[in-house]
Amino acid sequence: MTATSENLNPQTRGNLRQPKSVLRVAIEDVQPEIDCGRFPITRTPGEYVTVSADIFSDGHDVIDALVQYREDGDTAWHEEPMVLLNNDKWEAQFRVGGVGRYFYTVRAWVDSFKTWSRDLAKKAAAGHDLRLDLMAAEKFIAAAARRGTPADSEKLNALGARLGGLAGTDALTALAFLEDEDLISLLSTYRDSSTDTIYEKELAIRVDRPRARFGSWYEMFPRSCTNSPERHGTLRDCAEYVEYVAYMGFDVLYLPPIHPIGLTERKGKNNSTSPSPHDPGSPWAIGSKDGGHKAIHAELGTFTDLEALKEKAAQHGIELALDLAFQCSPDHPYVKEHREWFRSRADGSVQYAENPPKKYQDIYPLDFETPRYAELAEELKSVVLFWVSHGIRIFRVDNPHTKAFVFWEWMIREVQRGYPDVIFLAEAFTRPKIMYRLAKLGFNQSYTYFAWKNTKEELTKFGTEITQPPVSDFFRPNLWPNTPDILNEYLQEGGRPASIARLILAATMGANYGIYGPAFELIENRPVREGSEEYLDSEKYQIRVWNRDDPRSLKEIIRRVNTIRRESIALQSNLHLEFHPTDNPELIAYSKTSEDRSDKILVIVNLDPVNRQMGWVDVVLSEFRLAPGESFELQDLLTDRKYVWQGSRNYVELNPAYLPAHIFRVQPLR
Amino acid sequence: MTATSENLNPQTRGNLRQPKSVLRVAIEDVQPEIDCGRFPITRTPGEYVTVSADIFSDGHDVIDALVQYREDGDTAWHEEPMVLLNNDKWEAQFRVGGVGRYFYTVRAWVDSFKTWSRDLAKKAAAGHDLRLDLMAAEKFIAAAARRGTPADSEKLNALGARLGGLAGTDALTALAFLEDEDLISLLSTYRDSSTDTIYEKELAIRVDRPRARFGSWYEMFPRSCTNSPERHGTLRDCAEYVEYVAYMGFDVLYLPPIHPIGLTERKGKNNSTSPSPHDPGSPWAIGSKDGGHKAIHAELGTFTDLEALKEKAAQHGIELALDLAFQCSPDHPYVKEHREWFRSRADGSVQYAENPPKKYQDIYPLDFETPRYAELAEELKSVVLFWVSHGIRIFRVDNPHTKAFVFWEWMIREVQRGYPDVIFLAEAFTRPKIMYRLAKLGFNQSYTYFAWKNTKEELTKFGTEITQPPVSDFFRPNLWPNTPDILNEYLQEGGRPASIARLILAATMGANYGIYGPAFELIENRPVREGSEEYLDSEKYQIRVWNRDDPRSLKEIIRRVNTIRRESIALQSNLHLEFHPTDNPELIAYSKTSEDRSDKILVIVNLDPVNRQMGWVDVVLSEFRLAPGESFELQDLLTDRKYVWQGSRNYVELNPAYLPAHIFRVQPLR
Repeated sequence: MTATSENLNPQTRGNLRQPKSVLRVAIEDVQPEIDCGRFPITRTPGEYVTVSADIFSDGHDVIDALVQYREDGDTAWHEEPMVLLNNDKWEAQFRVGGVGRYFYTVRAWVDSFKTWSRDLAKKAAAGHDLRLDLMAAEKFIAAAARRGTPADSEKLNALGARLGGLAGTDALTALAFLEDEDLISLLSTYRDSSTDTIYEKELAIRVDRPRARFGSWYEMFPRSCTNSPERHGTLRDCAEYVEYVAYMGFDVLYLPPIHPIGLTERKGKNNSTSPSPHDPGSPWAIGSKDGGHKAIHAELGTFTDLEALKEKAAQHGIELALDLAFQCSPDHPYVKEHREWFRSRADGSVQYAENPPKKYQDIYPLDFETPRYAELAEELKSVVLFWVSHGIRIFRVDNPHTKAFVFWEWMIREVQRGYPDVIFLAEAFTRPKIMYRLAKLGFNQSYTYFAWKNTKEELTKFGTEITQPPVSDFFRPNLWPNTPDILNEYLQEGGRPASIARLILAATMGANYGIYGPAFELIENRPVREGSEEYLDSEKYQIRVWNRDDPRSLKEIIRRVNTIRRESIALQSNLHLEFHPTDNPELIAYSKTSEDRSDKILVIVNLDPVNRQMGWVDVVLSEFRLAPGESFELQDLLTDRKYVWQGSRNYVELNPAYLPAHIFRVQPLR
Repeated sequence: MTATSENLNPQTRGNLRQPKSVLRVAIEDVQPEIDCGRFPITRTPGEYVTVSADIFSDGHDVIDALVQYREDGDTAWHEEPMVLLNNDKWEAQFRVGGVGRYFYTVRAWVDSFKTWSRDLAKKAAAGHDLRLDLMAAEKFIAAAARRGTPADSEKLNALGARLGGLAGTDALTALAFLEDEDLISLLSTYRDSSTDTIYEKELAIRVDRPRARFGSWYEMFPRSCTNSPERHGTLRDCAEYVEYVAYMGFDVLYLPPIHPIGLTERKGKNNSTSPSPHDPGSPWAIGSKDGGHKAIHAELGTFTDLEALKEKAAQHGIELALDLAFQCSPDHPYVKEHREWFRSRADGSVQYAENPPKKYQDIYPLDFETPRYAELAEELKSVVLFWVSHGIRIFRVDNPHTKAFVFWEWMIREVQRGYPDVIFLAEAFTRPKIMYRLAKLGFNQSYTYFAWKNTKEELTKFGTEITQPPVSDFFRPNLWPNTPDILNEYLQEGGRPASIARLILAATMGANYGIYGPAFELIENRPVREGSEEYLDSEKYQIRVWNRDDPRSLKEIIRRVNTIRRESIALQSNLHLEFHPTDNPELIAYSKTSEDRSDKILVIVNLDPVNRQMGWVDVVLSEFRLAPGESFELQDLLTDRKYVWQGSRNYVELNPAYLPAHIFRVQPLR
């Protein structure tokens, strides 16, 4: 390939160089392409990538194009022909293979033989003398023969000779001869590709393992795995609850930090600054004389206990996820050993975390602008690799938006280079562009604003944004109705129906979702004070005893919802989320369908936790491949009741006192 | 500047390198940026460039940003501070200087002093002890002093010492002292810029001369500057009509090709293939034994005559534009001298132009895929430079979309490097993406689909597209109601009112427009045959005698419209084109306003050339900086009649038999 001035940057000063050969085809607006190719798109194994581009040439010649893709490390490209959609927009699809990095680009060219062939047909139809044109065909064939393998070359020469015999005498037979499939295929294989235009960038794909796309998370404080507030729960206790978590159908069990907790400036119950001597402190105040991010809090147990918990969880199909909170309590060994990783106040003391006028004297942030940055970054990477060496492959990252972007991109790439199955979930409740940046930098999943999207309008806008390109090409939402930090007003006020509605919304709108339990299933909804989103008696600061057998628990419906998720491939990805209009602002309707549209789920939720709501749903029949007026069966997967609907407009009624939602499987009645 | 992994390409294999220092700010989505910076944006001298970008950092620190810009060749950057709009979107504006190339980029940083200062204010408000914080300020000042000039350094040290004196004793005075403007300005000047993030691209601007933005074109066949079809008009005759063209108020006089015309396969009247011996042939069949693209057709005159015409036109404020049609008649000297620049048929004859089954045997296209491409390209460039050396600075380029893109980009850059005042108008009536590509490659102006946009809906969509970014950042439309190739149905059927309406639409919607005369002003509207857009007895194939004094001529209204254009700066650019709703589909209303909104033009056109149309216009008052319900004066610049309107909803009535349009100047009644 000779580069031509078509590909040069406009910044080039002075004169453009003359190209050695003229590449006639232009390739513009290749999609997907994140930030001009600065960042990869993401997929999971076997998922489609649909590549489009504007492709055109000067003049009126026939052009052709293909997408080239390959796995990192391979030198040969796979090829997928592109087809012209309209307005010079071309498209092709391919499926990625297993976990790893892939690259794709676009190649396009003027096809001289196809141009000639198209023109010949027009001339033949107009009754022109074709002798000279047919002679030109011999030249095409001869040129292809020169590029062919000996065998193909021989074939081509024979075909050329035959054509030569016909061209002068029998134009119509010659024409028919030119439609010979072997000939066309050989001419295509051995076309002159020296002036193909190849898009100037190789765009990257990061293929993560399936769990990155689909998972049901359960967050639980192991210290509350106890039957008494005086008895600190342990990892061994926690293992006793694996069956409970598995019963509900979760895939990922996420533990808040399990490291030694600092004593200095320790917070008491309800974030009090005057703790009692027995208060266990916040697990996010990491580090004590017993160790830091590579140690386990003694009251929780040992590495052996962790290993046992991990093994038991694995037996139940559950993966452990640990917390990565890169911050230190004043007692963290780093403070003494690596004083230069922290900022100083004017008196030489360590700068604690602040959000003026608020002070967080129990937390020392790491200083990513330290002159020792490289050393700090290596240490933090080693923390991740330490837990990876203990078999942990999922990390929930605390507040990544308060650490340098450059660190995350480097660290995640470094870790995934050796362990491409490691998943990082970004807990960045911050402004949208920062959230998206973190995803671009490498986070495999991200918390979202879901907890604050409660109205139909909010949910529709939010659901659409996170499941459409370009966002869906790099950002994987993980939807949480609650977290230890977020008990929002809707849950506080709405009681049981609100909790069920939010569970179903999270679990069916997002392929990844999670709950913080047992607070969620036990409908713990008391805020620490009016107007706060913090839990009263939060587990962040104290040990809680939970009655998991409470008959009011939502565990049965959670089990049902997670079973539905496991049995529906439509719910296991964010492809094809479509909102269906309803005439009642309290009724939201949306569907998810699988790639091949064989699995079709329609969800309808009454967002009003108090009143029965009824109305008409305008089903977008095309989403279900249904014809106008066609009848279809709806099976409510929550209750197993069946309904038959006809055409688009159908009545629905939901009583929150009974169940605030339908999760229908849609089947045509054929 | 040390590059950091923030700026590395995702294609980087293996591990990312550790950055030497951490650049905390991310810069995304810089606008304008054409095709990831592959192409420049365009402006004319003194025009604004508004640059926006998404800019944000990790954490909660105060960030700041500026746009840097410079002229090509300068090493120092000018700077314009950016302001935060919302949602992390920042913006700045600057004005370009004179003709030439410019570059811009974005720089952003965490401002430690401003962060500290913001936090200090919050702490002060909360009544915290500020002593340690004030001591930190001394560090900022000392660091800035180390970076300052000796004089500024001394100043800063003095201020630091004063602060030191106050900090321990009188916090409030110290606080006030920190608001000292000199201090803040010095701290800003000498801030640490070593970890600024600089956007990875320098984006280019091509500043063309003002005529590229605003001009009224008149196309005329010099051979028809005659009073008898038997007498070939000459360039000297043409010069006699300069006053006529000037009277109508045109700025550019564009002549179809003036080169020797081929005899072989010459076309006769109405494109007949059996010409009479007296038929003059098509000026686009370039080249005879008398010469090619660097010669003047003998019957038109000499270089001296061309010089005289150019001079006379210049005296009347009119510039000559020549045609660049890079194709040859079979008699062109190139055919003998550079046989390898043309394709061959199988019998060794030269391949004529085809659009199968149509044949254009009078035209030999140049082959941009010839192995002698470099030689061909140099020769074609030399054609342009030849006419440049004869004082021509405007070229109308015939069918550029049938020649290689790479040639145009190279040739235009080469020519404009020496002669940045040369303007190229692309005549590419082809698919939109190709049209836009040619503009991106360097064409200063482009013909458009205007001739086929006749309904209100079509005009609104078209007008919006061509005047909004990104299109308006690289594409300058030149609107033609007719050309020698385009007499569309609306003009054929609509008679005088249609011609006036199309004139006014072209001249007020586009800052650049043109007509092909005298056919236009004499309302020549007979097609060669039913359903054709070709003129009957087209000047392309014969000499026409025109009665320019015909009382039905539109020359007076053309004069008026061009006068209005010269007196209205709003009409001299495509900034702020806004469509105002009307309740009648035959009434289109739109406004143009100048950059400072002091010049305000409201145009209303009745698109129905037969019937009087009336209706209500919903004036978008904000475009005119008018308050709701405010009264304002409208002066019709076509008739000088004045009207007073109030508020947004106003009645309008237009009778095509009288005048199908208003061109109002809008004035508040204050």
